[in-house]
Amino acid sequence: MTFRQTRIVEFQHCDAAGIVFYPRYFEMISSVIERFFSDALGQGFAMLLERGLAIPMAHIEADFHAPSRLEDRLDFALDITRIGTSSTDFRIACTGPAPRFTATGTLVHVDLKNGRSAPWPDALRAGLAQHLSEPA
Amino acid sequence: MTFRQTRIVEFQHCDAAGIVFYPRYFEMISSVIERFFSDALGQGFAMLLERGLAIPMAHIEADFHAPSRLEDRLDFALDITRIGTSSTDFRIACTGPAPRFTATGTLVHVDLKNGRSAPWPDALRAGLAQHLSEPA
Amino acid sequence: MTFRQTRIVEFQHCDAAGIVFYPRYFEMISSVIERFFSDALGQGFAMLLERGLAIPMAHIEADFHAPSRLEDRLDFALDITRIGTSSTDFRIACTGPAPRFTATGTLVHVDLKNGRSAPWPDALRAGLAQHLSEPA
Amino acid sequence: MTFRQTRIVEFQHCDAAGIVFYPRYFEMISSVIERFFSDALGQGFAMLLERGLAIPMAHIEADFHAPSRLEDRLDFALDITRIGTSSTDFRIACTGPAPRFTATGTLVHVDLKNGRSAPWPDALRAGLAQHLSEPA
Repeated sequence: MTFRQTRIVEFQHCDAAGIVFYPRYFEMISSVIERFFSDALGQGFAMLLERGLAIPMAHIEADFHAPSRLEDRLDFALDITRIGTSSTDFRIACTGPAPRFTATGTLVHVDLKNGRSAPWPDALRAGLAQHLSEPA
Repeated sequence: MTFRQTRIVEFQHCDAAGIVFYPRYFEMISSVIERFFSDALGQGFAMLLERGLAIPMAHIEADFHAPSRLEDRLDFALDITRIGTSSTDFRIACTGPAPRFTATGTLVHVDLKNGRSAPWPDALRAGLAQHLSEPA
Repeated sequence: MTFRQTRIVEFQHCDAAGIVFYPRYFEMISSVIERFFSDALGQGFAMLLERGLAIPMAHIEADFHAPSRLEDRLDFALDITRIGTSSTDFRIACTGPAPRFTATGTLVHVDLKNGRSAPWPDALRAGLAQHLSEPA
Repeated sequence: MTFRQTRIVEFQHCDAAGIVFYPRYFEMISSVIERFFSDALGQGFAMLLERGLAIPMAHIEADFHAPSRLEDRLDFALDITRIGTSSTDFRIACTGPAPRFTATGTLVHVDLKNGRSAPWPDALRAGLAQHLSEPA
């Protein structure tokens, strides 16, 4: 089951060339992932932080296909592509409606008390599994 | 008629003290104003830029009443408090639901060809007038 | 004694109109204030946070005089204009070399344990006093 | 010849977990690349934009090795790892002094008039060649 979100390109996302500044795409990716954990899996990052847990990015890569401009409507489609003991891989395709960028990455479930990876709790693992799709 | 928007506090808005970093409030203010011109007045900033027009901020000030935290739901209420020949004053109250910050500012309608202020076109003036309220 | 810093305008600061997006000026203001406490007063915000202290912004206002563009060299001049029991007022003038913006604001020394203002320690008060100038 | 830059972690870079928010690393990467073209190659992005040219990111990937915190001093080492007809690959290692992240990516020289890639001019190609190193 793909998780979907929409964002409108605003002044804060654009650069001097009049197009979306690519670090803002990573802010959007973070925003989509935060909504995924909060709205789809029911375990927001604030709740996790209170328990001394976090889900930082260990690796991310992106291919930028075409520029986005002010007021463009961007659709994000998030799929889980692998679930490990304490990490997970995802893929996000951003379209507008033509492809704008594709990103893949690895998130790790970390116990902030010792800074080490921690196995996914059952509830989160089950939630991730519901969004597992085949790698593209 | 007050224009209303909601934003959720995300990782991108917070700082090392765990609360919203105040420059991110100004990004949110810009976002709310962009949606106001686009969604309420029907004249988005992208459309204006194509015509060689922009509405930059000439003055802004804000009082920060209480900190906001990750995943807080922030409600923004925008009112127009003055309409001049080529500028307008606004007030934005942000609550969560207790007051978080109040901002007031002056926007100027500028012709980018010469960098000078330009009188509001009738359509924009009429739209602003519909959101005019008494100064608090 | 005025505290001075220089920043170069980069892609991350500009918007779709090709000029500095004003919320980025507030990021620069925060950056200059952080360097002031760290480099001029010898008490950086990281050190303060470790002691459970922070110096959040209570009020800020800015007048934007002229736009800044990519690769502009911006000079910031910070003066302290008032020192209260647990707060201080400052003024920052940004020039490039013509005036770009002027900001004034109030910082409050806060004890994070109870969220209340706390009197300036003697060392910080003495440091602020060395940068006290007459209000413009 | 490796191009080197230093950045101090500030409030604007940190997130609610008290560590650098990874999209800010991409802002830092952009900043380092801008300084590389401006200071090392003598052809800043503002100058290029005036000629209707830009050097957008086509692909980027990063591995995050360890978190960075407020006031950390981060050293960036940029090497060119491939020079194509109209693109180039780079590698940036960020240390503090232990490894924080490593990024690799592909920049493309684009003619903004038609949005297509354009061969590197001789001066830029020669400048890139001076910073060419073996892939790690």
